[in-house]
Amino acid sequence: MTVDHAARRARLAAALPELSADAVLVTKPVNVRYLTGLASSNAALLVRVGEAGAVLATDVRYIETARRICPDVEIVQERDVAGALAGRAAGARLAVEAHHMPVAEFHRLGDARGATLVPVSAPVERLRVVKDEAEIDLLRTACAITDQAFADVLPVIRPGVTEREIARALETRMAELGADKPAFDSIVAAGPNGAVPHHSPGDRPVRRGDLVTMDFGALSAGYHADMTRTVAVGEPAGWQRDLYDLVREAQRAGRHALRRGASAHDVDAAAREVIAAAGHAGDFGHGLGHGVGLEIHEDPFLGPDKPGRIEDRVPITVEPGVYLPGKGGVRIEDTLVARDDRPELLTKTTKELLVL
Amino acid sequence: MTVDHAARRARLAAALPELSADAVLVTKPVNVRYLTGLASSNAALLVRVGEAGAVLATDVRYIETARRICPDVEIVQERDVAGALAGRAAGARLAVEAHHMPVAEFHRLGDARGATLVPVSAPVERLRVVKDEAEIDLLRTACAITDQAFADVLPVIRPGVTEREIARALETRMAELGADKPAFDSIVAAGPNGAVPHHSPGDRPVRRGDLVTMDFGALSAGYHADMTRTVAVGEPAGWQRDLYDLVREAQRAGRHALRRGASAHDVDAAAREVIAAAGHAGDFGHGLGHGVGLEIHEDPFLGPDKPGRIEDRVPITVEPGVYLPGKGGVRIEDTLVARDDRPELLTKTTKELLVL
Repeated sequence: MTVDHAARRARLAAALPELSADAVLVTKPVNVRYLTGLASSNAALLVRVGEAGAVLATDVRYIETARRICPDVEIVQERDVAGALAGRAAGARLAVEAHHMPVAEFHRLGDARGATLVPVSAPVERLRVVKDEAEIDLLRTACAITDQAFADVLPVIRPGVTEREIARALETRMAELGADKPAFDSIVAAGPNGAVPHHSPGDRPVRRGDLVTMDFGALSAGYHADMTRTVAVGEPAGWQRDLYDLVREAQRAGRHALRRGASAHDVDAAAREVIAAAGHAGDFGHGLGHGVGLEIHEDPFLGPDKPGRIEDRVPITVEPGVYLPGKGGVRIEDTLVARDDRPELLTKTTKELLVL
Repeated sequence: MTVDHAARRARLAAALPELSADAVLVTKPVNVRYLTGLASSNAALLVRVGEAGAVLATDVRYIETARRICPDVEIVQERDVAGALAGRAAGARLAVEAHHMPVAEFHRLGDARGATLVPVSAPVERLRVVKDEAEIDLLRTACAITDQAFADVLPVIRPGVTEREIARALETRMAELGADKPAFDSIVAAGPNGAVPHHSPGDRPVRRGDLVTMDFGALSAGYHADMTRTVAVGEPAGWQRDLYDLVREAQRAGRHALRRGASAHDVDAAAREVIAAAGHAGDFGHGLGHGVGLEIHEDPFLGPDKPGRIEDRVPITVEPGVYLPGKGGVRIEDTLVARDDRPELLTKTTKELLVL
């Protein structure tokens, strides 16, 4: 499956009139990548209404790559990529990415360049919410690497190994399996550290009787996998098994609520109510999930106060957790794709409690 | 050596009057980390003139960590971290980080919170340019890991191994040696790919007769190492050896020009003139170097049009390159610390041409 970047740019251009703009200056790197295929830390793209083609600016470090992969786009070599493109839009009403462009950059471009800048909220992110099948296929690959790495690293998780060593083993195995790098900083939290949702893996060794939570994923071709599993090292205590079963039931409820047309609030509530009914409402302090794609966290977000409804072909995580300070915690997370009816599960590792 | 975060906050508070501000809202994550020690993707810090202490806001995922490592700071648990702190500054003239805060966030906070927002350019980055000895020590560690990984991976670089495999070997070895992760996406460019300064490592195998450029480094305790070496696989051709000698001579000239009081322009020129004199002015299209610390690219920058002068205790890279499209390239880069006189070299790998 190939990606049609020109079609994406055409969709963006078609949205400009309703944003009261003649053109849009895309400066957020991941959005430039979405619209051109170019991954660069210094690039910008000008997309205009009508017949005028797109213009891509980047600096000498990326110019050869840009010419190779964007043969159908006019390319400008310039270090001040935004300044160069704003200059090309003199006299136009030029939309800029208000959620990304720093206020100093907004003033610099507005003062100097003769275009009228129109701050617009996330014009490219809106297009990115619903994925095409080529993107979903890339996510399938990233999630398959993640599943396989977890299976391969399970034998490493035994008393004495440190959180950091487990994280490194997962990351090394993902790289061997073809990941470009980890999709985000891996979380490995053993025993009481499991009560910290975003614990950084440290030198604590795993002990018999620990629950160990691992939240990690592969980045592959720009797309991010995200999975969390909690395992028991040694036979779990009653409270540990009860906590696990509760979170697993909540996660199932969240997955089953995920379908086209469901509200972001209702999907969150389906899982949250299970946890609240068990008396743990105060121990699940974060949202239920988030979209994934070219960013690890992107629209839509699932939470009690999140707006909007789920659409078909939206990859998203479902990741309830219960955190008991001083004792530990459980989180279970899958990456799924919302569909018309049942979601497609991309992370396929078992959700049975693994006792190692 | 321990880090005195309170002293850093006091220096920031002392700078507020000249910025015409009563308080500053720090929202850039790496700056929050510099001032508190907390590494979080969602945290903000309020620093005020006078007796009022600092206030740190973060969400449930990081709150336990914040309480543990910042016992001397008032801590607020809130998802909207910037909104919560702006509310605490009602009536004040509140400096915000104009180079970081998105224009939409600037309008949101300004409209709703009763503080008068004052966009200020990089108030914390200014403090971060000159490092304390504890920071330089962390950079020494990151650079030592980088050197050792390079030495250990040299035997891997032989005909048939791919760019990607070399990058993975470097990254795995850095992790084994204690790195938290790579400081940036590693560059490995073999043969003609060496003409692309920021080439992404791919499936091209190394061939006898290639120059291979590797630009990589370790991230350790938040601090970034950055080193580039170019090696020859098999006996180099005359043009390859000449190119290497030229870049090496330019890099030496740049290092020797680096001292307290030198202008950023002059340090760049010292290296650039060597390359220009050999007829390659057009083949060195990027700046000579950049500061390193909690970010991989930070002030000061060395380039033909860069302002400012070098100070004592400023870690910085010196990295000239010559790139010949279709043929290949050479880049040689060290991380150094500018001192009163001779710079301190942190990356100690030989700059003799290694023929593998």
